Amino acid sequence: MRGSEGNEFIEKWYVMNLQQLGEFGFIDRIKTNSIFRPQGVIKGIDDDCAVFEIGDAEHYGLLTIDALVEGVHFIRDLISPADLGYKSLAVNLSDIAAMGGQPLDAYVSLAIPSSLSVEYLDEFYAGLYDLADRHNVNVLGGDTTRSKGDFFVAIAVFGQVKKSNVCYRHGAKPGDLIFVTGTLGDSAGGLEVLLNTLNLQEPYRSQLVAAHVRPKAFAAEGPFLAACGGVTSMIDVSDGIGSDIFHICRQSHVGAKIRQQNIPLSEALLHLGQKYARDTLDLALNGGEDYRLLFTVTPERNKAIEESYRDRFGESLFLIGEISDSGKVILVSDDGQEKILQQGGWDHFSRKSTS
Amino acid sequence: MRGSEGNEFIEKWYVMNLQQLGEFGFIDRIKTNSIFRPQGVIKGIDDDCAVFEIGDAEHYGLLTIDALVEGVHFIRDLISPADLGYKSLAVNLSDIAAMGGQPLDAYVSLAIPSSLSVEYLDEFYAGLYDLADRHNVNVLGGDTTRSKGDFFVAIAVFGQVKKSNVCYRHGAKPGDLIFVTGTLGDSAGGLEVLLNTLNLQEPYRSQLVAAHVRPKAFAAEGPFLAACGGVTSMIDVSDGIGSDIFHICRQSHVGAKIRQQNIPLSEALLHLGQKYARDTLDLALNGGEDYRLLFTVTPERNKAIEESYRDRFGESLFLIGEISDSGKVILVSDDGQEKILQQGGWDHFSRKSTS
Repeated sequence: MRGSEGNEFIEKWYVMNLQQLGEFGFIDRIKTNSIFRPQGVIKGIDDDCAVFEIGDAEHYGLLTIDALVEGVHFIRDLISPADLGYKSLAVNLSDIAAMGGQPLDAYVSLAIPSSLSVEYLDEFYAGLYDLADRHNVNVLGGDTTRSKGDFFVAIAVFGQVKKSNVCYRHGAKPGDLIFVTGTLGDSAGGLEVLLNTLNLQEPYRSQLVAAHVRPKAFAAEGPFLAACGGVTSMIDVSDGIGSDIFHICRQSHVGAKIRQQNIPLSEALLHLGQKYARDTLDLALNGGEDYRLLFTVTPERNKAIEESYRDRFGESLFLIGEISDSGKVILVSDDGQEKILQQGGWDHFSRKSTS
Repeated sequence: MRGSEGNEFIEKWYVMNLQQLGEFGFIDRIKTNSIFRPQGVIKGIDDDCAVFEIGDAEHYGLLTIDALVEGVHFIRDLISPADLGYKSLAVNLSDIAAMGGQPLDAYVSLAIPSSLSVEYLDEFYAGLYDLADRHNVNVLGGDTTRSKGDFFVAIAVFGQVKKSNVCYRHGAKPGDLIFVTGTLGDSAGGLEVLLNTLNLQEPYRSQLVAAHVRPKAFAAEGPFLAACGGVTSMIDVSDGIGSDIFHICRQSHVGAKIRQQNIPLSEALLHLGQKYARDTLDLALNGGEDYRLLFTVTPERNKAIEESYRDRFGESLFLIGEISDSGKVILVSDDGQEKILQQGGWDHFSRKSTS
């Protein structure tokens, strides 16, 4: 029973308190004692999805939930309703893909301010259904209600994964090679373009904006990689690899060495960096919302996986470094200097980028 | 790309537009073409949960998502954080129960304004975990983010139901008897007490407030009833029976006759009605948030079900009417007069109570 409005001292203290704890500190706090029926639980809070028995001998169930909040994740004037619908589902499909799973059904909870028209919502659903259709994902349920202020979108996606293929954040071993499925920093670059109405030349402008508003969900690529054999850990890049590699390292009890020269940057991002003096390395490490898959592979399997991925999808994988036993994440700069990275990326509470 | 702020004419038009369509009109609109992979789907948008195959010969999977939004579903100063956590889960367990299912795992998505302290959130989770513990429901995942304005809670619950026991809104037949599992209107009465700080005597005040802030989830009762044999349809009373009975009637292509004298009203609600001149019938029909189970039973099975329910739970079921073939919902008043009811209850967009 605490209405902190009207008591500035208390409010400031509280704000600091939650910001100091940070998103990951908060998650650590709530995951304690959250299991009341352990049987059937394979993995709870701490990975891209929960993993659990569903009474099927071959498959585990997967479930993830992710919200996009107006003013925090999007600004309504800077993203079309169709793109917002698309992106709201994409971020969840990305979580299923990162476990090596197949998305099956989505559930959409909306809190809708009165300023949104039926037409806006029709377009929102058109964008969402566009992506759902591509990946054979049903929208099987939801909840719609009013909001007095911002537009809130929370989507839960249920999926399944072959038991033998499930990929976690843990499992990486020293010597494993670290890959990503695409260029990094484009989404953050696109946000820069939108927020500052940067007059970048085409097709660069459109490429960066598209990476931000219609991120590719690697929904087919995730299960393909997981089925290749040799993938030892996987996560989707939602906060930036400068944050997400730490999840793999902590949960696998390993370190990592990332080679700056191997971090894939698009021509569009490089162009943005040159023209508007943006730090492309920082965008790539800490910008977030790229939704690439970041994964580790045993050295015996990496060549075979690179080849079969190229055969199947016509795209290259990017080898950005290797797992070490140091317990630290080290960035090797272009001139060979080594720097210990601190966890950066996007923290939803503290808004810090600590790199 | 529509920012309606700053254009009052357009904003007003949009508001009307969505309000006129109403929540159920909107749901009808989005459920069209929402299935892109029909195999395995038993029931999509249109019931308390989605029902789907999970690769288990004996069980279907169930999934529901429900949000509580500050300023719409709750006022932060009028509900303790622990009660809010409890209620946020209870409304979802109620949906699983209404299908005859067992809840298994919950997923909690929070958008947290900076005015909320860590202590507030700890209490919120304590209330949520209190209920989760009672029903052996795990909290297996979630998503936490900032909100610039209101506190937003969306919870998804995964459950399962024996295939032979699943209860839908459809399935009621003329002649079936209509039951509810508890008194009606108490939650709306409790909200009246809180909003207007009514000085009702104890224990009435506490009883009504508790019905509003800690609604009982009939999580054990739902599957018990479904397993009895003879239950032909079921729904949970979230919007008020004056709305929810229409869902059963429409989906079962039947009508209903409700006897006013049989609508169970608590002593506390009657006391509120007398002391503060509240229309208890309206609260019972259209107040909403009672989260009782409303279900229909074949005439052959009703006595057996009433008895075994009383044996198992020590509580009575309330027979409030019967299903007819009229296609209409008729309220029989205490003096025997019949009145055709229009769908009332709580509509999240239009805020109308049309009875």
